[in-house]
Amino acid sequence: MDYQKILESIAEEVKPLVKKGKVADYIPALAKVDINQFAMSVITIDGAEFHTGDTKMNFSIQSISKVFTFALAFRELQDRIWSRVGREPSGNPFNSLIQLEKENGIPRNPFINAGALVITDMLFDIADNPRQKLLETIKLLSGGADISYNKLIAESERANGFRNAALANFLKSHQNIKHDIEEVLNLYFCHCSIEMNTRELAKSFLFLANGGVNPEDNHQILTLSQSKRLNAMMTTCGSYDEAGDFAFRVGLPGKSGVGGGIAAVIPGKLAVAVWSPGLNAKGNSLAGIKALELFTTKTGVSVF
Amino acid sequence: MDYQKILESIAEEVKPLVKKGKVADYIPALAKVDINQFAMSVITIDGAEFHTGDTKMNFSIQSISKVFTFALAFRELQDRIWSRVGREPSGNPFNSLIQLEKENGIPRNPFINAGALVITDMLFDIADNPRQKLLETIKLLSGGADISYNKLIAESERANGFRNAALANFLKSHQNIKHDIEEVLNLYFCHCSIEMNTRELAKSFLFLANGGVNPEDNHQILTLSQSKRLNAMMTTCGSYDEAGDFAFRVGLPGKSGVGGGIAAVIPGKLAVAVWSPGLNAKGNSLAGIKALELFTTKTGVSVF
Amino acid sequence: MDYQKILESIAEEVKPLVKKGKVADYIPALAKVDINQFAMSVITIDGAEFHTGDTKMNFSIQSISKVFTFALAFRELQDRIWSRVGREPSGNPFNSLIQLEKENGIPRNPFINAGALVITDMLFDIADNPRQKLLETIKLLSGGADISYNKLIAESERANGFRNAALANFLKSHQNIKHDIEEVLNLYFCHCSIEMNTRELAKSFLFLANGGVNPEDNHQILTLSQSKRLNAMMTTCGSYDEAGDFAFRVGLPGKSGVGGGIAAVIPGKLAVAVWSPGLNAKGNSLAGIKALELFTTKTGVSVF
Amino acid sequence: MDYQKILESIAEEVKPLVKKGKVADYIPALAKVDINQFAMSVITIDGAEFHTGDTKMNFSIQSISKVFTFALAFRELQDRIWSRVGREPSGNPFNSLIQLEKENGIPRNPFINAGALVITDMLFDIADNPRQKLLETIKLLSGGADISYNKLIAESERANGFRNAALANFLKSHQNIKHDIEEVLNLYFCHCSIEMNTRELAKSFLFLANGGVNPEDNHQILTLSQSKRLNAMMTTCGSYDEAGDFAFRVGLPGKSGVGGGIAAVIPGKLAVAVWSPGLNAKGNSLAGIKALELFTTKTGVSVF
Repeated sequence: MDYQKILESIAEEVKPLVKKGKVADYIPALAKVDINQFAMSVITIDGAEFHTGDTKMNFSIQSISKVFTFALAFRELQDRIWSRVGREPSGNPFNSLIQLEKENGIPRNPFINAGALVITDMLFDIADNPRQKLLETIKLLSGGADISYNKLIAESERANGFRNAALANFLKSHQNIKHDIEEVLNLYFCHCSIEMNTRELAKSFLFLANGGVNPEDNHQILTLSQSKRLNAMMTTCGSYDEAGDFAFRVGLPGKSGVGGGIAAVIPGKLAVAVWSPGLNAKGNSLAGIKALELFTTKTGVSVF
Repeated sequence: MDYQKILESIAEEVKPLVKKGKVADYIPALAKVDINQFAMSVITIDGAEFHTGDTKMNFSIQSISKVFTFALAFRELQDRIWSRVGREPSGNPFNSLIQLEKENGIPRNPFINAGALVITDMLFDIADNPRQKLLETIKLLSGGADISYNKLIAESERANGFRNAALANFLKSHQNIKHDIEEVLNLYFCHCSIEMNTRELAKSFLFLANGGVNPEDNHQILTLSQSKRLNAMMTTCGSYDEAGDFAFRVGLPGKSGVGGGIAAVIPGKLAVAVWSPGLNAKGNSLAGIKALELFTTKTGVSVF
Repeated sequence: MDYQKILESIAEEVKPLVKKGKVADYIPALAKVDINQFAMSVITIDGAEFHTGDTKMNFSIQSISKVFTFALAFRELQDRIWSRVGREPSGNPFNSLIQLEKENGIPRNPFINAGALVITDMLFDIADNPRQKLLETIKLLSGGADISYNKLIAESERANGFRNAALANFLKSHQNIKHDIEEVLNLYFCHCSIEMNTRELAKSFLFLANGGVNPEDNHQILTLSQSKRLNAMMTTCGSYDEAGDFAFRVGLPGKSGVGGGIAAVIPGKLAVAVWSPGLNAKGNSLAGIKALELFTTKTGVSVF
Repeated sequence: MDYQKILESIAEEVKPLVKKGKVADYIPALAKVDINQFAMSVITIDGAEFHTGDTKMNFSIQSISKVFTFALAFRELQDRIWSRVGREPSGNPFNSLIQLEKENGIPRNPFINAGALVITDMLFDIADNPRQKLLETIKLLSGGADISYNKLIAESERANGFRNAALANFLKSHQNIKHDIEEVLNLYFCHCSIEMNTRELAKSFLFLANGGVNPEDNHQILTLSQSKRLNAMMTTCGSYDEAGDFAFRVGLPGKSGVGGGIAAVIPGKLAVAVWSPGLNAKGNSLAGIKALELFTTKTGVSVF
C-alpha cells in the first residue's frame, strides 16, 4: 500500500477543514496556537515511516497522555486498578461530576478526567518520582530524547483548573485519591502538558499495534492481553463523548486530546498520529478525525 | 485452528457458571426456561461449522433482533436514520428514560430500547408488511426456513411492557415515533420474540464477518462500509451498559439479549453464537460472556 | 381593609403584563384563548366578595384541579396515600420522568403530573364513579351548579398527551398505577378540563382558608390538621418548579394551572383567585403572579 | 397559652426519640457529642421566655448559620444577590454537585452548601473583616456576648471538607466564587462552627418573628418585606431535602443544622429553638422535628 500517496491525498482533502473548528481557549498558552496547521504520520511495526504536513511541530498532547499514565499503572498494578476506576464509556462530558456523584466516586474509565486523576494518584504508589518515571517511559516509547513537560502550560492549567480541582476534591471525599490533592493535580497537569510532534506520537503508540512490545527494541511494555485490552478501552472510551462516532467513522482504537492531536493503531500493522488544532464541538480535532476516517476508507483497513 | 476442540474445552470450563446468574423473569414465558443449558456455535465464512452443547434448542433472541432491524433500516434508509437516533454508548441502563428526556427524545443508539423503538417505527416506512419483511430477511440470513415469532412471548411482553410503552409514548411526545404507538410496540415485541438456536444465530451474523455479504449466496445485505460501521456500533453499544467490559474481556463486535444469547463476529473470519440463559446483573449471559472471553483468549484472535 | 380598591389598583398596575407571556399552546383548544384577559376575585370566610375584571369568564383550571383530587384522596384515604406519593418539592419540571426513574416510580408530590396521576388512580378506589364524585365535590365547594368538564379539551389533551401517557406507563411499570391506564388518563384529563371563573375558584378554595370547613354550609371537607397540611404542600410544591419564587414574592399557599389561573388562601381570612392566560417561562400566569404579589404587598398580609 | 407546660409535655413525649437517630460523625469533634440531650426554648416578641431541658448546653449551629450569613448579604446587597444564587428548593441532597453542573454553577438557594458558599464569598465584598462582622451581628441578635467560633471544629471541618472544597472549586470554575477559595472555605467552616444554646438561638431568630426588627433594641435588621421573604425561603428550602415534610408536619419557617439544632419562628408571635443531636436519615434532628411538630399541634398555631 502506498501510504505516502494516501497521506498526501488526505492532507489535500482535509485542507478546507483545517481552518474550521475552534482552538482550545481555556488557557492562554493553548489559545494562541495557530489554527492553520496539519500533520499526519504513519509508522508501521516494521519501521517504515510516512509523513505529511507540519510533522516537526510540537503540540500539547493533553489527554493523549492518559494512555501513557494508564499503561504505566496497568503494567505495574494490573487488575488491582479496577477497584478504583471502571472501563465503561461514560455517556457524559469528559469533565462531568454528575456520574461521579451518582456512582460514589468511582470514575467510569481512565480516559475521562476523573479517571485519569485516580490513575495519576496511583502513580505515586508505583514510583518515588512518578514525574520522572513517566517521562522516561514516554521517551523510551517515542524515541524522542528531548520530550519534556511544558511548565508554562502546566502552571497555566493549574491556575485555571478549578474544574479538575473540583473533581480531585470530590474523589478525595470518597477516599479515591490517596495522596495529596495538590501533588496529584500538579502531576496531572504536568503530564497533560507534554509536547510531541506527530512522528514521536505515532512512534510512542507503536507498542499497542505490536501486542504490547516496542518493535524498536523488543521491550515488552504490556502483555499481549493488556495491550489488546487497552486498545479495546480506547475504542469504547477514547474520544470523550464521541467514542461511538469515532468507532463508526474511523474504526480504530485511538485517543484524542484538546491540543488537537489524535493517535490510533491498526493492531498488527501500524500506528498513526494526526494533529490539527481546530476542535469540533465535542473537543476532538475536526480535521484530525476526518483525516483518520479517510485513512481507513482509502486503505480499506479498520479493525471491523 | 482446531475450533471444535476449543469449543469443547470452553463448554467444560464454563460449566460451573451455567447454573449461576439469573434467568430473565419479567415475563412468565422467559422465567420458566431451564437455567441449566449451554450451547455454542462457530461458523466460518468458508462454511465450516463447529458446535457444542444444546445447539438444537431454540431460545428467544430478544435484543439481538435489534441488529436485524437496524441492518434493515440502515440498508434501506442509509444515513437518513441519524437524524432520529445517535450512535454513542449511553452510559445508562438499556431501558432508561433519563437520558432520553435530557436529549429531547433522540435515543443514544439503536441498541437501547428507545433507539430500537425508533428503528422499528422506521420499518413501517420501508415495507408494507414490515413484520413479514423482517422475518424473510432473517430467514434468508440464517438459513432457518422455519424461524418465526413466538406469539405467546410477544403477547406476554406487550401485556407487561409498560416500561417500553412509556418509552414509546415519550418518543411520540417528541415526534420521534411517526406511526401508531400500538403498532410499533407490537412489531417491537414481535421481533424480540423470534426464536433461534445458536447455529442459526451464528449463520445469520455471518454477513457481518464477510463485509456485508452473505457468504452462502453472495447476497449483498450491507455495503462493506455499512457492515464495518455496524460492527463498530456493536462494539461500543452492543452490550447494554456493559459494552466497555465486553470489549475489554472479549474484544469482538457482538450483541446480547436477555434470553441469554450473544452473537459476535471476527471480521474476515467467522461468526460465533453462544447461549446460556443465566444472566449477570447487567442482563447479559453470565456463562456466555465467559465463553466468548475464553474463545478469544484460546484462539488468540480478537479485533484488537 | 378596602379590598375592592386594592383589587382595582392591582388590575390597573398589571395591565401592561397581561399581553405579555405566552398562552399555553400544546392543544388547539387552549391555544386559541384570547391573551388579553384578566380577572381577580377575593372572598373572605365571612362571605364578603370583591371582584375585578373578567370574572364571569370561564377558563380551564388545569392543574388547579390537582388540589381537589388530592383533597378527596386525603380525606378518604388519609395517611395511607404516602406510601405511593411523597410531599417534597421536586426541583424538576412538572412533567419530568428523570426523578421518577431515580426514585423508583414514587412521585415527589401530588402536584406534579406523575403524582396527580397516582392520586387520580386512587380515586377509583374511593368511588364507583370517581368522575361524578369529583364533580359533585367541586360543585359543593364552589357553589357553581353548572360547573362541568369540557369534553373537547379533555379529548384534545388525551389525543396529544403522550408525555402523560409515558408517565402513566412508567408508573404502571412500578405498580404505582393499579387501575387501567386508559381510564386513569381519561379521568386525569377530564378533571384538568374543568372550567370555572375566578369567583367560583376563590369560593372553592375557601375551605382551605377556614380550617377545612366550607364556611357557607359548615361542611367539614378536611380536618383542621389536614387543611393546614394541604396549605403547607401548596406552599412548597404548588407552583411547579417556581414554588420557591412564588413563596418569596407572594407568600401564600397557592396552586397554579397552565390555563392561567391561580388560587391562593390567607388562612383564617380569605381565598383569592386570579386569572390571566399569558404564562411565564415556568408555566405560571405572568400577570397572575404579579397580581398576587401586589395583593400581599398592598394588604401587608402574608403567612410569613 | 401556657407555653411552659407545653414545652414540658413535649420534652416528656419526645424522650424515647432522643436516643434514636445518629449523631453527625463526619468529623471527630461532632461524633463525640453525647446523643442523650434535648433542649427547647421559646421566646416571644414581648420578651417572655420558656425553657426546658439542657438549655445551657452549647452546640454547633452548623447550617443554621446560613440564615445569618444570608441575612447579612440580603441586607447589604439586596436583590443584587439573585444573579448568583436562586431561591428554589433543590429537590437534591444539600451537598450535591449534580444540579449545580446542570445549572451552570448557579446554586438553587442559599441554604444548600453551594449557595451558602456563594453567600460567604459575598461577605468579603461587604466587610473588610467579614468574620468579625458576622460575629458582631450574631452577638447583637442573640444577646450572647461570649458567642464565638469553635476553632477546633472549624479546622477539623476544613481538614475533612473535600466535598465542600469540590463545590467551591466547581463554583470558581463558573466564576461564581470571586475571592480566594481557601479564604472562602475558611470563613464558611468558621461560621458553621459557631456555638450557641437554645436560648441564644431562639433569641437570635426573634427579628424574623418581628418583621425584621430585633424587639430587644428595636434595631431594624431587615425590612419587613425582606424578613417575610427570608421566612418564605426557610419554608421552602430550610430543611435540606426534607423541606416539604417539615412544612407538612411543623408548618413553620425554620432552619436546621447537622449539629442537631433547629430554629423556627411564628411571625408576629415568637421564635422557638430546639436541640437534640441525634439525626434522621435526611440529616435533621429526629427529636427536634418531632418536638416542633408537637409544638404547633399543641398550640394550634402554624403559619397555615
